[in-house]
Amino acid sequence: MQTITVNTGRPYDVLIGRGLLVKAGELTARVHKPCTVAIVSDETVAGLYMAGVAQSFQNAGFRTVEYVFPAGEQSKNMAQLADLLDFLAQNELGRSDLIAALGGGVTGDLTGFAAASFQRGIGCVQLPTTLLAAVDSSVGGKTAVNLPSGKNLAGAFWQPELVLCDCDTFATLPEEELSAGGAECVKYAMLGDGELLEIITKQGLNAKWEDIVAPCVEYKARVVAEDEKEHGVRKLLNLGHTVGHAAERLSGYSIRHGEGVAMGMMVLTLAAEKRGVCARGVTARLEAALKALKLPTVCPYAPEDIAKASLGDKKRQGDSITLVLPRAVGDCFWQTIKTSEMLDWVRLGVEKGLS
Amino acid sequence: MQTITVNTGRPYDVLIGRGLLVKAGELTARVHKPCTVAIVSDETVAGLYMAGVAQSFQNAGFRTVEYVFPAGEQSKNMAQLADLLDFLAQNELGRSDLIAALGGGVTGDLTGFAAASFQRGIGCVQLPTTLLAAVDSSVGGKTAVNLPSGKNLAGAFWQPELVLCDCDTFATLPEEELSAGGAECVKYAMLGDGELLEIITKQGLNAKWEDIVAPCVEYKARVVAEDEKEHGVRKLLNLGHTVGHAAERLSGYSIRHGEGVAMGMMVLTLAAEKRGVCARGVTARLEAALKALKLPTVCPYAPEDIAKASLGDKKRQGDSITLVLPRAVGDCFWQTIKTSEMLDWVRLGVEKGLS
Repeated sequence: MQTITVNTGRPYDVLIGRGLLVKAGELTARVHKPCTVAIVSDETVAGLYMAGVAQSFQNAGFRTVEYVFPAGEQSKNMAQLADLLDFLAQNELGRSDLIAALGGGVTGDLTGFAAASFQRGIGCVQLPTTLLAAVDSSVGGKTAVNLPSGKNLAGAFWQPELVLCDCDTFATLPEEELSAGGAECVKYAMLGDGELLEIITKQGLNAKWEDIVAPCVEYKARVVAEDEKEHGVRKLLNLGHTVGHAAERLSGYSIRHGEGVAMGMMVLTLAAEKRGVCARGVTARLEAALKALKLPTVCPYAPEDIAKASLGDKKRQGDSITLVLPRAVGDCFWQTIKTSEMLDWVRLGVEKGLS
Repeated sequence: MQTITVNTGRPYDVLIGRGLLVKAGELTARVHKPCTVAIVSDETVAGLYMAGVAQSFQNAGFRTVEYVFPAGEQSKNMAQLADLLDFLAQNELGRSDLIAALGGGVTGDLTGFAAASFQRGIGCVQLPTTLLAAVDSSVGGKTAVNLPSGKNLAGAFWQPELVLCDCDTFATLPEEELSAGGAECVKYAMLGDGELLEIITKQGLNAKWEDIVAPCVEYKARVVAEDEKEHGVRKLLNLGHTVGHAAERLSGYSIRHGEGVAMGMMVLTLAAEKRGVCARGVTARLEAALKALKLPTVCPYAPEDIAKASLGDKKRQGDSITLVLPRAVGDCFWQTIKTSEMLDWVRLGVEKGLS
């Protein structure tokens, strides 16, 4: 088991290893005294892990209550949040109690926002059961739900008290779900670790994930500790996300987040390479890694639509928007451009060839 | 005009005076560069002030959009919050834009929570138009909506960037609304200012409110600066609120918040005096001040019901609950009791006479 400490305002540990879910209770008891724990999970994940996790908490002296909601991105909305919050109230949780998010990104985001909002904030434990949630959404305190107008538009920064990444859970994931999580691992490799990119490219979907998760979480922990509220360096973590969110939206959310991120990284890396701000060959290396994970490397929407959808992103500020771009593998930067320039960037990135 | 600075993480000013609403734009421009301002107000207040406030912002170079919702506590819920958040998204507000809460406590609480949540937090200006909002809800960053299970159970700590208390607005308030705000002024007097209690008792509803608002806000600013997230001394501001919220709930929210607070202060002050932890005569002085403001001094519900409803309060922690009690006028403290003792406290405070 590896332990990575995230040095935010109140520091917390991310534990990475195998067989952690059935120890959730005793591991939580090290950082939080016995209380009521509301375990939140979707129907799919609850069927796999709820009983074991609840038992573990009970064995460690916690009272547990269980909230199960329909699986899928469509549950990540304000009405579901309202229902969850009232569930917590009905079960008489107080400020010293805990919420545990058992599941993937939707569960972590929804539950984290509920923890941030219930009685103006109660403690939260993240128990990610997908690769995507393990390397990305469970660490760093970004929580959110979607609004009719767009993804993740309502939320809070709310750090968990503990994150348990049980890599055994990845074994039950469908291949496309593993791929989607792998897209975020590729992102971390592009941001800070060229060696990691080679490992992913070579191992593909047969990767030893517990060895890959740790460097991703380490990178994220460093960035989050330096910039908890995303005023500066944390913006780098949005690599691939501005165009990626646009692609997700244009697909009617039929593609996975990771697929969107893969497309988003490809579009802006290719554009950056064409403009000469990114070294030659970076797009090819990125493409090889994404292909090894069976991820899309082409964004199939019209540049005009992508550009328009991108401008609805939170990263837009008035008539400018911040893009994260690779300079080389393992070295990215951000650049603020006029919103009127966005279409040119997208066109360059969508048109084939390095011309 | 008086200026009181609240020294929270990011300090902000509370301006108290007359004719401030029509200067809202220029006063905001001193602390925030031109952007889009979403002005949020209920139907009643919008009819009185929206046009003037919007004009003032426009004159100062801001773009304005207006969101008007049905007046009343029943609007302070998750569905209205969701609607407001999507309004902000539809109008393409970004992280550098502002929300202005123009109205009473419901508007300030709902709007403040929306500001805290939209894109994980955007700036907020509070423009209170009631005495209650001016002395209480607009300052200090507590925001919330109600859940079916109880009042203010979902929310966030989110400090505004500016608060403008225009005391001219109090002239349009119905007498019972002014009384309700006066209850919070009595609370501040009980907490820290015996002289203020005498002034309120003598002047009653004819008080010169601009002179009364300033000491209340000064007291609150000191406490909030010392304890932004209510881990300690800020708990004192809950004087009258635990039993008060219970009374509001038992009335089906037909009584005003200030009436609940008046009842709540009476119940626990009388109980404290009977138990000898509060000096003799304090209940009588409190009662005189409340009567001068035509506020209720008797809590008309059964002790069992009050105790039960009180235990649903956020101040409960497992099997204990924190009560705020006067030791003397201008000197209060808090005490944690077992929830099982709550009924005895309430009984003592509801039964007449000092026996």
